[in-house]
Amino acid sequence: MREIQVRTRARRELVDITRQVAAAARESGGSGAWLVFVPHTTAGVTINEGADPAVADDILTALEAAVPEGQPWKHAEGNSPAHVLSTLVGSSVLVAVEDGEVALGTWQSIFFCEFDGPRSRQVWLQKLE
Amino acid sequence: MREIQVRTRARRELVDITRQVAAAARESGGSGAWLVFVPHTTAGVTINEGADPAVADDILTALEAAVPEGQPWKHAEGNSPAHVLSTLVGSSVLVAVEDGEVALGTWQSIFFCEFDGPRSRQVWLQKLE
Amino acid sequence: MREIQVRTRARRELVDITRQVAAAARESGGSGAWLVFVPHTTAGVTINEGADPAVADDILTALEAAVPEGQPWKHAEGNSPAHVLSTLVGSSVLVAVEDGEVALGTWQSIFFCEFDGPRSRQVWLQKLE
Repeated sequence: MREIQVRTRARRELVDITRQVAAAARESGGSGAWLVFVPHTTAGVTINEGADPAVADDILTALEAAVPEGQPWKHAEGNSPAHVLSTLVGSSVLVAVEDGEVALGTWQSIFFCEFDGPRSRQVWLQKLE
Repeated sequence: MREIQVRTRARRELVDITRQVAAAARESGGSGAWLVFVPHTTAGVTINEGADPAVADDILTALEAAVPEGQPWKHAEGNSPAHVLSTLVGSSVLVAVEDGEVALGTWQSIFFCEFDGPRSRQVWLQKLE
Repeated sequence: MREIQVRTRARRELVDITRQVAAAARESGGSGAWLVFVPHTTAGVTINEGADPAVADDILTALEAAVPEGQPWKHAEGNSPAHVLSTLVGSSVLVAVEDGEVALGTWQSIFFCEFDGPRSRQVWLQKLE
């Protein structure tokens, strides 16, 4: 298993990690799939458009609207919306790899999703054949 | 990797692709799992009930309510809700296969989720053992 | 493929199944990943914090708010919100395994998500190498 380090800089942020995943796949070579797994409960990982950064901004805006802050949460740490978004977005993506190349669509990038930053985060990469 | 072609006919639509995935698994045979991956950023794939088409209608209705149109989006193409739904629903599902047969529950079907159609779309199928 | 039985006791409930998944991985040994798959269309599976049970409560509260009951659903069985939540949360998670040990973050547990209980439910476990 390989590990990527992600340093987030805001409460909520989408960080493009496509390059790091692609580099790991290329170094390892071969075909199959890579599991991109986030070992945190207030973050997630998603695949979406990386060309226009406004898309990531709009995703964060919509997620905040879907799970608003300031509700009477039971969890005392004040980050319940981050936990909910982690479940809605998901803790992992799985991407196919052919001859060491990650198979993504033209507009697709892989984003680490910070919902309770800023923090130092990890992403685990596991190869499946 | 195999590819399924999907021709969508509405702005938002759930298209049952279970038959195509099952056919690929049967032709290929063997056991393991198949990654059903959508290489688009304004579409997704999900597993849900295929028996009553009203379920797919209700899913689309609820998703539209959760991410309403007509907000002040930054992304200029006017399809930000489609990008958000792609992240919420997800770009892939992974299904087990035993002796060439896709392992799904009694009521489960695999649906391509169009959120910005109508368009010609692709679905990638990758076998994992 | 292995099967876990889950007996849910409420309409909506998150049931921690980490121990059962870990036991299956340990018995089977080896490294790779396990697909944790829910063969139902009104339930799901997610990874989130298991230490404080208030987190699971808050997740259920937020999901109910995001997909409210009492809308004019087409599906006549009255459980359309459960179908929608199944799609939003997802039918499976994939977790890496190293030498028979499930690789989860410090705070992560695997939860079966009941959205239309109480019922007897199954979870399928499939090993991938």
